Amino acid sequence: MTKKIRAVQFGVGPIGASIARLMRQKAMIEIVGAIDKDPAKVGRDLGEVVGAPDAPWRVVISAKSQPALEKSVDIVVHSTSSYLTSVMDQLKECLAAGCCIVSTCEELAYPWKKHPELSKQLDAAAKEEGVALLGTGVNPGFVMDKLVLTLSAVSQRVDWASAVRIVDASKRRLPLQKKIGAGMTPEEFRAQVAAGVIKHHGLPESIAMLADGLGFAVDDISETIDPVMAEEDVKTEFLQVMRGQVAGVHQIARGTMGGKEKIFMELKMYVGAKSPSDTIELKGEPSLSLVIPGGTHGDVATAAVVVNAIPAILAAPAGLRSGRDLPFSFFPPTANT
Amino acid sequence: MTKKIRAVQFGVGPIGASIARLMRQKAMIEIVGAIDKDPAKVGRDLGEVVGAPDAPWRVVISAKSQPALEKSVDIVVHSTSSYLTSVMDQLKECLAAGCCIVSTCEELAYPWKKHPELSKQLDAAAKEEGVALLGTGVNPGFVMDKLVLTLSAVSQRVDWASAVRIVDASKRRLPLQKKIGAGMTPEEFRAQVAAGVIKHHGLPESIAMLADGLGFAVDDISETIDPVMAEEDVKTEFLQVMRGQVAGVHQIARGTMGGKEKIFMELKMYVGAKSPSDTIELKGEPSLSLVIPGGTHGDVATAAVVVNAIPAILAAPAGLRSGRDLPFSFFPPTANT
Repeated sequence: MTKKIRAVQFGVGPIGASIARLMRQKAMIEIVGAIDKDPAKVGRDLGEVVGAPDAPWRVVISAKSQPALEKSVDIVVHSTSSYLTSVMDQLKECLAAGCCIVSTCEELAYPWKKHPELSKQLDAAAKEEGVALLGTGVNPGFVMDKLVLTLSAVSQRVDWASAVRIVDASKRRLPLQKKIGAGMTPEEFRAQVAAGVIKHHGLPESIAMLADGLGFAVDDISETIDPVMAEEDVKTEFLQVMRGQVAGVHQIARGTMGGKEKIFMELKMYVGAKSPSDTIELKGEPSLSLVIPGGTHGDVATAAVVVNAIPAILAAPAGLRSGRDLPFSFFPPTANT
Repeated sequence: MTKKIRAVQFGVGPIGASIARLMRQKAMIEIVGAIDKDPAKVGRDLGEVVGAPDAPWRVVISAKSQPALEKSVDIVVHSTSSYLTSVMDQLKECLAAGCCIVSTCEELAYPWKKHPELSKQLDAAAKEEGVALLGTGVNPGFVMDKLVLTLSAVSQRVDWASAVRIVDASKRRLPLQKKIGAGMTPEEFRAQVAAGVIKHHGLPESIAMLADGLGFAVDDISETIDPVMAEEDVKTEFLQVMRGQVAGVHQIARGTMGGKEKIFMELKMYVGAKSPSDTIELKGEPSLSLVIPGGTHGDVATAAVVVNAIPAILAAPAGLRSGRDLPFSFFPPTANT
């Protein structure tokens, strides 16, 4: 029998919990540790904290990374923050312990443009230990970048690329509904945007990945955040949004080259969205479009992308990697051919 | 400046010509040779034979591989036959000369199931020379396998997969319109199927790739070929099909596990197809679909996939590879970051 992949879950929030439950379904993975600083979770069994029906798993959540990383860990699945600066120490600790990493940190999905210096540090640290790390998820990481690049494999020429994602937040978690400003007044929304609370991270990372992958010398990436206003009353499991209140967030990002738009990204996440979908368009030879009707569910898909990426990052050359470098596929639950 | 990729075009039929023209657009590629046994092409300039506006290219087509392969070749782009047994000697010659290969040979797209012994030989020969080879194209190679696996990266569980491709052959080459039986009587069509003339190759290869990638222990792959009958008169640039004649081909392939269908593939290529499209469906958690409205154009896309795969196969570990192992993306025309 093939040796199992020894995994540690770093960060046991809603996404981390979903990742842990999914890892548990893979015969090839053994979860050997978990890390979370939340005092309400420290010392408890990971299976119980993530609400697994087969708990306990006999995996104790530790506050610090040290005990967990001492167990000949192959891969750390990391899910603690959107900001690369906030997680540098965590990532470096894992690399220093000789572990590969897959992280949901949005800024790690393609960090070379926004954080060139930190990218160099991570690449060097990973190479020194002979391991690889990757930031990924559904967005950034898949629908607005990796899937676009994959589609571009049938292009003889690409002049312009776009990715538009419309998410109905009605069926999502309460924290997400709050994070997009659902139920706020426009003024509250603007204040929360200014405070940096309302913002989906990752569009500039997706644009940077596409720019490099498609060979566009993009010299400017701009981003706007506006509210989507509710046109009718919407009631979700958790909250009610009245007509005229904010239903969610509308973000647009553009990558331009000498003032000319080369990459367009639009993300609308709001309660009551009528036609959720992911749509990719490439103009060139040939011009092409691709639609995922209904769209990919953010939480389910992020856990999936992260866990499915484990075999690819373990097989990757040492260093800081991105979705651009790796084949993406499903990770079968049973041992594979 | 980075060293250019030295390429040889092996096979200068319609697809090979399209590949050569596309390679010529890539600043990173220098075409240093071409091989074709057709006496009408041997000794002529490749650029002239492929109808390039900037001909002559000062690349002479040779009948045998030897002179072309002696020029420190990095990559051979191979496009001569659908059958692996027919091209084994050609592939081995290229590998022995230390060249990587990307081939349009349909049976090479995922050869392990149908040709396990030949696959072993190619893998061993490639590893001995430290080079890699890949069979790819739009189908097999992309829309019915690689793109399905890429989509499966957002799946937590996959129970069943399907790929349906509907191609309007009206705007395709005459040889293709003939190859699908357009204008024949049903009897002529059946006779041509029995003679092995009418058949799109690659569905079993796509099923085998999906089976391994999705972890389905598929124990049987079956395939049917039937005519699509014209429901009205159709006139193309090259021929006319009357109502009641054959408009094209309808192939279905299934991968089953203990009698249960796990993978379904349907290909309809006929003149006058009303809604050409590529559609992928995954049942599982979550269930997902993906549509390319209009579909990917076979000839344009095959040349694109093959040329775009060159950087990935040059960077791949030595051996026999498939689309499963490699990241697929666009190959920018100018030197890339």
